[in-house]
Amino acid sequence: MDKKCTIIISGGLDSSTLIYQLYSEGYKLHAVSFLYGQKHSREIECAKKIVSNLAGIKHTIIDISYLGKELNSALTNSNENIPEGHYQAENMRRTVVPNRNMIMATIAHAIGYSNEIKNIALGIHAGDHFIYPDCRPEFIKEFEKTLRLSNDDEEINVITPFVNISKTEILKIGLELGVPYENTWTCYVGGDLACGKCGSCNERLSSFKECKTQDPLFYAE
Amino acid sequence: MDKKCTIIISGGLDSSTLIYQLYSEGYKLHAVSFLYGQKHSREIECAKKIVSNLAGIKHTIIDISYLGKELNSALTNSNENIPEGHYQAENMRRTVVPNRNMIMATIAHAIGYSNEIKNIALGIHAGDHFIYPDCRPEFIKEFEKTLRLSNDDEEINVITPFVNISKTEILKIGLELGVPYENTWTCYVGGDLACGKCGSCNERLSSFKECKTQDPLFYAE
Repeated sequence: MDKKCTIIISGGLDSSTLIYQLYSEGYKLHAVSFLYGQKHSREIECAKKIVSNLAGIKHTIIDISYLGKELNSALTNSNENIPEGHYQAENMRRTVVPNRNMIMATIAHAIGYSNEIKNIALGIHAGDHFIYPDCRPEFIKEFEKTLRLSNDDEEINVITPFVNISKTEILKIGLELGVPYENTWTCYVGGDLACGKCGSCNERLSSFKECKTQDPLFYAE
Repeated sequence: MDKKCTIIISGGLDSSTLIYQLYSEGYKLHAVSFLYGQKHSREIECAKKIVSNLAGIKHTIIDISYLGKELNSALTNSNENIPEGHYQAENMRRTVVPNRNMIMATIAHAIGYSNEIKNIALGIHAGDHFIYPDCRPEFIKEFEKTLRLSNDDEEINVITPFVNISKTEILKIGLELGVPYENTWTCYVGGDLACGKCGSCNERLSSFKECKTQDPLFYAE
């Protein structure tokens, strides 16, 4: 496998750690971020900071936010609140966006492939499996097969080193790599400060607690 | 399988025939068209006419044309001419857009799925197999598996009744159904009249000839 890869960076903890990891392993990277109508579009500003910390990485930002209006999800629907509580609770299913990962990864891969980059890396992790079917290993495996057939190219790989580990384990890796977590954004709600109450904040805070480290972000509560 | 389906309509001969066929079979349809930076964006006007001929079909037009600038293809690159000649010639490979069908079908499916439509129909046909890997039956089969896993839903189907038949056979079906082919657009070049020389025009003209029918479109040559 050649050491070139497109990476989707949301500006969250997982993809920010992944870009630092692949960069430290010597990958030549092309970062792609998406505005898809998410209320927490502030994460894109974080994605820009994270990428600009690493020399020589091209960063393409793709605006598919008009699509958000067509898709049925609490993440993109301005009339619906983000559910509070535990990440794996039933009400968190309202944060599912149909085909979100497939849409973003297929577009990002096409951009990279147009620049002769065959591989694509995604920061998906085990904590997302319960709610989000498009974060499960069986999805990733089939998605890779489909991308290869789409381009008649067996050298395409979908790189997901975190797919079977938890956010806490990702954070451990990132703390060793020196990821500047003050430049990342996790909260789904879209306020000026992270809410500290949505499923996404809860999961992040638990991980910092388990790593016995202070989260450098400020929280509303 | 329930008789509801999202359909991608380009405004070309194949998808226009498909929408007439599914409509005649009693499907409840939601049509989706894409502006992706194609030079022949005139086809979208044709798509609108075709859909408006059929009562009760919602039509969503999605503009992903900014994406065209990021993708490497003669179809979307304004500095490169559309190759002339036979559709299956080597130079036609420059009209490949990386992941084109996968991007459009994944977005269209997400829009339909947000409206409780599980299936998606695509007008791809056997004549496209040689040049376009994302029109081959093996791609469609894997794509369907991936869509099902993406949504954890085995009831999703990708409907491609033309995948193993030629454009001539599609045209025969359409002529019986009374498809108004004067409202369709096939030429890749993007002029006021169809050029009659690009691979796409050549294939269309051959099909009309084989069906012993006059193409109702006007051609520059």
